[in-house]
Amino acid sequence: MRATDFANAAGPIGVFDSGIGGLTVVAELRRRLPRERILYLGDTARVPYGGKSPETVTRYSREISDLLLAEGAKMIIVACNTASALAVPSLSESYPIPIIGVLEPGAAAAVQATRSGRIGVIGTKATIGSGAYSKAIRVLKPELIVFGNACPLLVPLIEEGYFDDDITKAVLNRYLEPMLENGIDTLVLGCTHYPLLKSAIRRACGDQVALVDSAENCALAVQSMIMEMPTTSSDPRLDILLTDPAEDFLRLAEKSLDLRIDSLQIRRIGY
Amino acid sequence: MRATDFANAAGPIGVFDSGIGGLTVVAELRRRLPRERILYLGDTARVPYGGKSPETVTRYSREISDLLLAEGAKMIIVACNTASALAVPSLSESYPIPIIGVLEPGAAAAVQATRSGRIGVIGTKATIGSGAYSKAIRVLKPELIVFGNACPLLVPLIEEGYFDDDITKAVLNRYLEPMLENGIDTLVLGCTHYPLLKSAIRRACGDQVALVDSAENCALAVQSMIMEMPTTSSDPRLDILLTDPAEDFLRLAEKSLDLRIDSLQIRRIGY
Repeated sequence: MRATDFANAAGPIGVFDSGIGGLTVVAELRRRLPRERILYLGDTARVPYGGKSPETVTRYSREISDLLLAEGAKMIIVACNTASALAVPSLSESYPIPIIGVLEPGAAAAVQATRSGRIGVIGTKATIGSGAYSKAIRVLKPELIVFGNACPLLVPLIEEGYFDDDITKAVLNRYLEPMLENGIDTLVLGCTHYPLLKSAIRRACGDQVALVDSAENCALAVQSMIMEMPTTSSDPRLDILLTDPAEDFLRLAEKSLDLRIDSLQIRRIGY
Repeated sequence: MRATDFANAAGPIGVFDSGIGGLTVVAELRRRLPRERILYLGDTARVPYGGKSPETVTRYSREISDLLLAEGAKMIIVACNTASALAVPSLSESYPIPIIGVLEPGAAAAVQATRSGRIGVIGTKATIGSGAYSKAIRVLKPELIVFGNACPLLVPLIEEGYFDDDITKAVLNRYLEPMLENGIDTLVLGCTHYPLLKSAIRRACGDQVALVDSAENCALAVQSMIMEMPTTSSDPRLDILLTDPAEDFLRLAEKSLDLRIDSLQIRRIGY
């Protein structure tokens, strides 16, 4: 990466997600890059993206990227697996700043982690339907076998706060059993909400399966890119834009992720 | 209602919902009014509405109503409990055609049904949070006691096709037990998706609780209004507009509701 690639070197790191799940990525970024300014956009007026078409998810991602670029973002982190799977390739072609999704870092970490060569991926319908994880993994190592399973009930269960709950346990067993029977030794949590269910997923999988957290691996990738960037003045704020009020969820995330939020604005988008 | 209220007497009945749940209302309308043309809009690009703010739900409802009016609708059925709870009063003030929600017919039917005077209402977070059912019921009969419970997992379970399933049973018991312990004898299904779970809800409640289906009662209200309207040429088509492709769901609904769909178009909205 050349310094000239960073048109807005003094700007914030722009991060977006369909909702507030992407704050798991922000928490990892904050931990690794404590001096960076972060501008987060959560598209709460149109959440979720996981059941929507590639065209619509790409259009939404483009509208948000336009906004983040106009706000001076020096790079854009697509902290949403669905948008990463469906929109990052086309965004990367058309913006003058780096666009980093959660998908490729997660795929690379899974390739590193597996011993048996059998990897499971859980995510939204759109993420799994796109086959993007499978492709990204097999580009790196074509002989690996990937089992994907769409898990549309997990985000609603997380939003209900059913973290440690018999219903969540039953749903996880339903979703994970077929992959476990297929002998996976690595499971990619292919949705930025899922780290909030990590202990329940750990219990459902047992200790023999490595869990790959796409939030964590995305933050690692950003960290190594930032190290190559020109030094910028430090103003480590976290500013949040939401397209629809979602203060309750936000306060919950702030607390459970131990994040300090400096400002919150509601911003209409897309028309 | 005077005949002059029907500015577009030859136009279709416009119906909208955040997604395709409102087709339960269309199925009831079709059964009762076989000669009417129906134009349905499902806002699948922004579904669901149930967790969104009153401002956003009202804005979306207004954008859709503008479109249906421009398409010549003679009345608009708001086949979505969330939009009925949050937006119908303001829509009614500003459109020149009748606007009919699912909420008031459902509330009236619940008042008719109860003997014990204790009514339960299930719906989305936004519907229950608005208190609109409780207000509509108590306007009719102030001494009634209403117990509301938001059930955000039911729509995702329905969309997973878990109609007759142990997980759905456990979720229903969780949501319904507190209301049953409070002695309700009537339960309003305050979301147009819920009739698809009617048998599971019936099993969870037992035979002593009357189930009030808002789709059915809304169709009844429309039927009595249509009887007062000037006769129109009959062209009993059902045309569907979706804001994002959702063909799979649509075909499922077509089959399970025994609906004939004459045309399907994807139509962008809201920008």
